[in-house]
Amino acid sequence: MTRSTSLPTTLYLSAPEMIRLVRRQGLTACIAGVAERIRHEFLRWNEFDKSARLACHSELGVIELMPIADASQFAFKYVNGHPGNHRRGLPTVMAFGMLADVQTGMPRLLSELTLTTAIRTAAMSALAARSLARPGSRRMALIGNGAQAEFQALAFRDLVGVEVLSLYDTDPAATAKLVANLAGQGLRLEVCAGTAEAVRGADIVTTATADKSHAAILTPDMIEPGMHLNAVGGDCPGKTELHRGVLGLSSVFVEYEPQSRIEGEIQQMPADFAVTEFWQVLAGRRPGRRSPSEVTVFDSVGFALEDFAALAFMGERAAALGFGEVIELMPDAADPKDLFGLLASRPRPAGPAPRQAGAARRMPPARTKLPAPM
Amino acid sequence: MTRSTSLPTTLYLSAPEMIRLVRRQGLTACIAGVAERIRHEFLRWNEFDKSARLACHSELGVIELMPIADASQFAFKYVNGHPGNHRRGLPTVMAFGMLADVQTGMPRLLSELTLTTAIRTAAMSALAARSLARPGSRRMALIGNGAQAEFQALAFRDLVGVEVLSLYDTDPAATAKLVANLAGQGLRLEVCAGTAEAVRGADIVTTATADKSHAAILTPDMIEPGMHLNAVGGDCPGKTELHRGVLGLSSVFVEYEPQSRIEGEIQQMPADFAVTEFWQVLAGRRPGRRSPSEVTVFDSVGFALEDFAALAFMGERAAALGFGEVIELMPDAADPKDLFGLLASRPRPAGPAPRQAGAARRMPPARTKLPAPM
Repeated sequence: MTRSTSLPTTLYLSAPEMIRLVRRQGLTACIAGVAERIRHEFLRWNEFDKSARLACHSELGVIELMPIADASQFAFKYVNGHPGNHRRGLPTVMAFGMLADVQTGMPRLLSELTLTTAIRTAAMSALAARSLARPGSRRMALIGNGAQAEFQALAFRDLVGVEVLSLYDTDPAATAKLVANLAGQGLRLEVCAGTAEAVRGADIVTTATADKSHAAILTPDMIEPGMHLNAVGGDCPGKTELHRGVLGLSSVFVEYEPQSRIEGEIQQMPADFAVTEFWQVLAGRRPGRRSPSEVTVFDSVGFALEDFAALAFMGERAAALGFGEVIELMPDAADPKDLFGLLASRPRPAGPAPRQAGAARRMPPARTKLPAPM
Repeated sequence: MTRSTSLPTTLYLSAPEMIRLVRRQGLTACIAGVAERIRHEFLRWNEFDKSARLACHSELGVIELMPIADASQFAFKYVNGHPGNHRRGLPTVMAFGMLADVQTGMPRLLSELTLTTAIRTAAMSALAARSLARPGSRRMALIGNGAQAEFQALAFRDLVGVEVLSLYDTDPAATAKLVANLAGQGLRLEVCAGTAEAVRGADIVTTATADKSHAAILTPDMIEPGMHLNAVGGDCPGKTELHRGVLGLSSVFVEYEPQSRIEGEIQQMPADFAVTEFWQVLAGRRPGRRSPSEVTVFDSVGFALEDFAALAFMGERAAALGFGEVIELMPDAADPKDLFGLLASRPRPAGPAPRQAGAARRMPPARTKLPAPM
């Protein structure tokens, strides 16, 4: 049974459907598209109602809710981080999210975000490096070769021009997987015996490790003048990747300062340690890299606006290409004041709503405003 | 394509499926079951990681996220409140929510909560009244006859013993709908011309109105000794139903004080205005009603623990009766460190996962703990 056509619908993108959508478009086109959308949204930073994400910590991991809204759309992401999950056959990070109309509260898109988070994180990292790494950066060390690594590699290849990757992971199987997956992608790969070896001579160092601890993956002795450090893995209170001495010798850029003070590498530093919100660099309000010898750090924790951008991009692509299915997450009452009446009327047929090939097209593009209320 | 049976799955309860489930069990059995589950969870209040909900306000309404967790389960609800929605054919309040495993972050239940919120709100109201209203209360005024009204009426009939309802709504069509829906339910109904008339002589007064303003539906002159006031509709900053003079002459009970100070009727009162958290009454730590002439107020705003209880109850009933369908919200990677590999392997068939009649039974009861990680 389908909703009456005059009411807004909710489009659902499952994980398998998102995989199909990314395959159809090509992963690198998705990364580039999401990066451009993030840039677009970051340039209207002040139009968003922002807050630090809400985190629920346990011994084994964290579960977070990340809401954000502008005047027309509300988005949130549910995401966990459980470093031991791979031992249970589950990803460390799993996510899903939603876009809803601010004017009615009606959910319009419910989507997997596990794959999409990997895409948006890589897109954000490369977007930042494009402003912060030295022009002509070609060599990147990739420390941590888990689920995020291929996405980082391809994003930096396409958006920054990286040609050589030096790889290290405490788990050699993870590195072997990465090498196999990147075969034929036009990147030169060097497998290293340790972090120091991988970092030596790199223009860019990306850390994407998962341990929930103060790990000091990078120490000051490893850092060379002019490096750009892309610190992806440290994103919780008590979870960092850089020795604080590294932060002391660097210019540090963050996404949303109130959240990064709690979760980022800079949680190790005094509250008045100077940082720059990256949107200000994009907007031309603050300088990015100021000299070829400066060490820059993008202290990435992941901010809700990146998920807003990724949801909007993927939702629009799905609608345009006819992916996803309409679900009945909300009841379709003939009289919206008569919720009780739903229970009294004739029984509906069992089972999920039938798949509707053309249904997705009934969802207007995500940024179309609804008419004002009567 | 289905997940391998060794991995935890996500059960989805759509709005039509929840309607089927409530019909199968009977609405009054659902209300009673949820009330008992709320009582059970409130009695272990200190085991929960609680926070005031996160609200995103706009001119037309509010969108909220309500998370809560104990050591084994994380729950959250998405809910909006848009008083003008009925003019667009949408309910004022729409909601959905989730239960997830704290130990892995894996979502185990995704459910509609629009209908379920009406059930849990009525269950909570009646549970409170059972402790706070005078014994032998038989007559209730019901001010605001919209989507919540039938649920309140039946909950108070079954759990409190109410026999007579005096009704008033500014919209006569809403009252007519309520009268029609309650025909044959064993309640005597009196339609009144105004709030004062409806309230006169009542043992209990329930207000469930929707305007987003300081409304003063009840004023001190209407209040008689011994009344119990169940204030359901005021639940946002700037949205209240009781004149502050009513609060001044009453003993006020709230769900979770930090949230109620922001959103409840008591937002009108000084920060040191005395209130009692209701769980303390249930636990026997604080008195409820102390005399037949005392005026009691349950300043209800809706707290995440009530949704946790409702999700757990409905999810367990769905699993036991084989309702719902397994969805693939998270990717099913052969190697959880190889997210990229999902994009490279052979294409999966298009479309949603097939409905599996027996699949719901693979979900263990919601409170069963997973084995500890290896």
